[in-house]
Amino acid sequence: MDQQVVIGVDYGTLSGRAVVVSAADGAELGGAVVEYPHGVLDRRLPSGVRLGPSWALQVPQDWREVLRRAVPAALAAAGVRPEQVIGIGTDFTACTVLPTTADGAPLCELDDLRDRPHAYPKLWKHHAAQPQADRINALAAERGEPWLPRYGGKISSEWQFAKALQVLEEDPEVFARADRWIEAADWIVWQLCGQETRNLCTAGYKGIHQGGYPSKEYLEALHPGFSGLLAKLDHPLSAMGERAGGLSAAGAALTGLPEGIAVAIGNVDAHVTAVAARAVEPGQMLAVMGTSTCHVMNSAVLAEIPGMCGVVENGIVPGLWGYEAGQSGVGDIFAWFLRCGLPPEYAAEARERGISGHELLTEKAARQQVGEHGLVALDWHNGNRSVLVDHDLSGVLVGCTLQTAPEDIYRALLEATAFGTRTIIDAFQTAGVEVTELIVAGGLLRSPFLMQLYADVIRRPLSVIDSEQGPALGAAIHAAVAAGAHPDVRTASAAMGKVRKNAYVPDPRRADAYDALYAIYTELHDHFGRDTDLLHRLRRIRDTGR
Amino acid sequence: MDQQVVIGVDYGTLSGRAVVVSAADGAELGGAVVEYPHGVLDRRLPSGVRLGPSWALQVPQDWREVLRRAVPAALAAAGVRPEQVIGIGTDFTACTVLPTTADGAPLCELDDLRDRPHAYPKLWKHHAAQPQADRINALAAERGEPWLPRYGGKISSEWQFAKALQVLEEDPEVFARADRWIEAADWIVWQLCGQETRNLCTAGYKGIHQGGYPSKEYLEALHPGFSGLLAKLDHPLSAMGERAGGLSAAGAALTGLPEGIAVAIGNVDAHVTAVAARAVEPGQMLAVMGTSTCHVMNSAVLAEIPGMCGVVENGIVPGLWGYEAGQSGVGDIFAWFLRCGLPPEYAAEARERGISGHELLTEKAARQQVGEHGLVALDWHNGNRSVLVDHDLSGVLVGCTLQTAPEDIYRALLEATAFGTRTIIDAFQTAGVEVTELIVAGGLLRSPFLMQLYADVIRRPLSVIDSEQGPALGAAIHAAVAAGAHPDVRTASAAMGKVRKNAYVPDPRRADAYDALYAIYTELHDHFGRDTDLLHRLRRIRDTGR
Repeated sequence: MDQQVVIGVDYGTLSGRAVVVSAADGAELGGAVVEYPHGVLDRRLPSGVRLGPSWALQVPQDWREVLRRAVPAALAAAGVRPEQVIGIGTDFTACTVLPTTADGAPLCELDDLRDRPHAYPKLWKHHAAQPQADRINALAAERGEPWLPRYGGKISSEWQFAKALQVLEEDPEVFARADRWIEAADWIVWQLCGQETRNLCTAGYKGIHQGGYPSKEYLEALHPGFSGLLAKLDHPLSAMGERAGGLSAAGAALTGLPEGIAVAIGNVDAHVTAVAARAVEPGQMLAVMGTSTCHVMNSAVLAEIPGMCGVVENGIVPGLWGYEAGQSGVGDIFAWFLRCGLPPEYAAEARERGISGHELLTEKAARQQVGEHGLVALDWHNGNRSVLVDHDLSGVLVGCTLQTAPEDIYRALLEATAFGTRTIIDAFQTAGVEVTELIVAGGLLRSPFLMQLYADVIRRPLSVIDSEQGPALGAAIHAAVAAGAHPDVRTASAAMGKVRKNAYVPDPRRADAYDALYAIYTELHDHFGRDTDLLHRLRRIRDTGR
Repeated sequence: MDQQVVIGVDYGTLSGRAVVVSAADGAELGGAVVEYPHGVLDRRLPSGVRLGPSWALQVPQDWREVLRRAVPAALAAAGVRPEQVIGIGTDFTACTVLPTTADGAPLCELDDLRDRPHAYPKLWKHHAAQPQADRINALAAERGEPWLPRYGGKISSEWQFAKALQVLEEDPEVFARADRWIEAADWIVWQLCGQETRNLCTAGYKGIHQGGYPSKEYLEALHPGFSGLLAKLDHPLSAMGERAGGLSAAGAALTGLPEGIAVAIGNVDAHVTAVAARAVEPGQMLAVMGTSTCHVMNSAVLAEIPGMCGVVENGIVPGLWGYEAGQSGVGDIFAWFLRCGLPPEYAAEARERGISGHELLTEKAARQQVGEHGLVALDWHNGNRSVLVDHDLSGVLVGCTLQTAPEDIYRALLEATAFGTRTIIDAFQTAGVEVTELIVAGGLLRSPFLMQLYADVIRRPLSVIDSEQGPALGAAIHAAVAAGAHPDVRTASAAMGKVRKNAYVPDPRRADAYDALYAIYTELHDHFGRDTDLLHRLRRIRDTGR
């Protein structure tokens, strides 16, 4: 009998990717990428209607296009026949959320709502609901809502309730016409199996579902009529790896896959990556390191950790508490420094040698002893998510002299993000949630110098995912569980996930030297993050100046 | 009768400049520059003997060369006959100091001492005597030496006693052979008039002369035999503008000037510039702004101001207390940022448009509203002289975001140096020494944007010297006083000095906006400069790392 395969489809910010994976051992057989025709709508709707600042929308038809074109292309690339496919799984950016009719039609596809911005899906990075988020938090704190500590004390403007409240306040008709308010992660599954499901991961992390949703009284106090959202959300929640249903006739027509094969319930990119990287046991923290870093990990222990993004029972794998934390700027900070701090002669050298500016600065920085540059930075150029949950903070650099070179500052910024990770790990430890290993996925693992630096700073072995397609592989693993190829997600992760264990181990001498710098970082962190509101006042001066 | 002229000779770090000036009104008629053939000796003696780190020596014959070549060339350029010259005055870097025989021969010109580094003049920026300075300060503080507060609590490694102690400890034979230990400012006058004089300016600011020199007991406690220095210094002190003597036959042969014309006593570059810029009345603070900034001003009041470099009775003009303060990095910090923070596309734009990187960044920075960049910096990249007297401090930058552009940081650095000046002015005011006007000399006055920024930040009118040759003009003014063309330095300054009064006046709206940023600066200043030793610990980590 031919090899059984599953398909994982990863929905990113600008494109979707399908990967064909062996259901037995996770071997990746082939894949295909489709760029979203409309990308991110951040200035205008396709019809030309202008959007406000900080808006970010998407077009649902783009997501269907990924199913229509990438799935067959991936099969072709893998040399696999559709009949070999036993299941399909997906993961999505989150919280990406949209209003639909009762049968799942996006409101933006209705003729009379096509020109209404609020009828479109709001992408995760739609930040125009900050005023709503501020009021959600203020009222929740005032009322002592019991779910608030589960989110580190702050609900993000990126999440379901803030975005929904913006719709209600700015376009009440769209709010009223929406029968359903649904994560794209669940909507895409609806397209495949023809019936609505809701996954407990996005409900828990992005939808404030802790046993239940926030109370009717609280929502009405926020805005009269806002409790109407509860009916739009109401639906049983499914656990990760469950079968949402069989592939519908329409889904089969769209993808070219056999009708009736297993469709896994929806999921989130970082969370499925934990499964792909075999980071599913207590103590194993996954860091998805890219422009920002998302940390997810499991524990048998429930704790309230300062600044965590959320803790959800069974949120990543069944039977454990799934935690999420984050650093709001990582690779973005390094890229910013390259825009600002790469002198012409460095740029010329990199060009001549055919290497990137990052590689050149890394090479120069790597020649130094720990601490030799005399600098410490705070990695708050994009605010601080964990552990301070404060987006009005900003970056700090201390120790500059007339001898300070660009590679010195670059290295200090790399180190600052590692100190930021250590601060998060320390917060978990202090709360009684032990972290024994860091497993890294994401684009930044391509820098061995950065990885070794992290291992030295956090004084823990560092493992790295052994796949270029972590999220898609993770989605495929969930498909394999839904199809019954493995009994549960943890077993499937062990069989199909891929990790290079202990790829980097800390060097005790360097780790000791970093301890001294980390002590300085912590002093600066606590001074600027807790003891003084100087950075907030500076931000207000900036906003007044503008 | 032909116009009477005077000659001012300004001895800088790399060259000497002679300027011919009308004795009546200060009109500058012509000038000439001679580069020192040996420049600064910071690696080897001319014979090849190697020097240690932080050494900086000069060659006395280079200074004679300026008299021999620049004076006749300046006369020729001015179209003036030697017979029209009624006096010559000089100013010198300080503390630049050398050991000589009893008749003024530099020890480095004796055949048997030519290969001995300590026989050479130590240039102002010779920094190898820091260990000696540290002990001078520790012992003075321990014994409560009464002169210490007159120097802001710290004697610099650049000054006479630290440099002399280094000679005694590292080459006692040279110390013993030196009959005289003399400032180059006084030595050059000796070359002109054939007799030793000592000016009270360098004695007071660089020689710890406050009524008298430090006591024999203190010097012996520093190092046995060090009180022997007192005999090498002993000489009556002359006031600024006094006639040191008539030009000697040797001096006349060297310069081509008439024997017997007035030679003014020695002086210091920043101090003569105050006279050239008509910054001689109480309340007028002169800022000589270049790589670093030197502040000098006069007051009828004696006060102990934190971090001042020194206060000397009659130190700048007779009858007033002369104060000196300083910022150890100003233009140096802007130049550092250009080395580190000018992206290739900016460099290309500046090249295409034929402007400097400074001009381009200034142009971009000037488009902003005050505070709009959201940044505040501490200008401590080269330590802090006034008011903290702490060279182990380092630069700080707060407020960076992913949107921060190079011109934002550049402007924040310009502002930081203005805040540093305001901090010094505030310290004078708090001590009861009123500052009503800032008068600027030095290369940085070429930036109108920077000048306006300073006026706005310090909330005072800013005048600028109206001469390209401030120090040489100041030396010439002293020559005119010595020659009797004017009765005293203040009168001569009024007749011959040149200033554009109130060239920049503060804009109240911008000044208010800067007040808010200055409050942040002051908080950072006091936190990192006074409340925590974090930057000192970071410096130690750096030194350990190296």
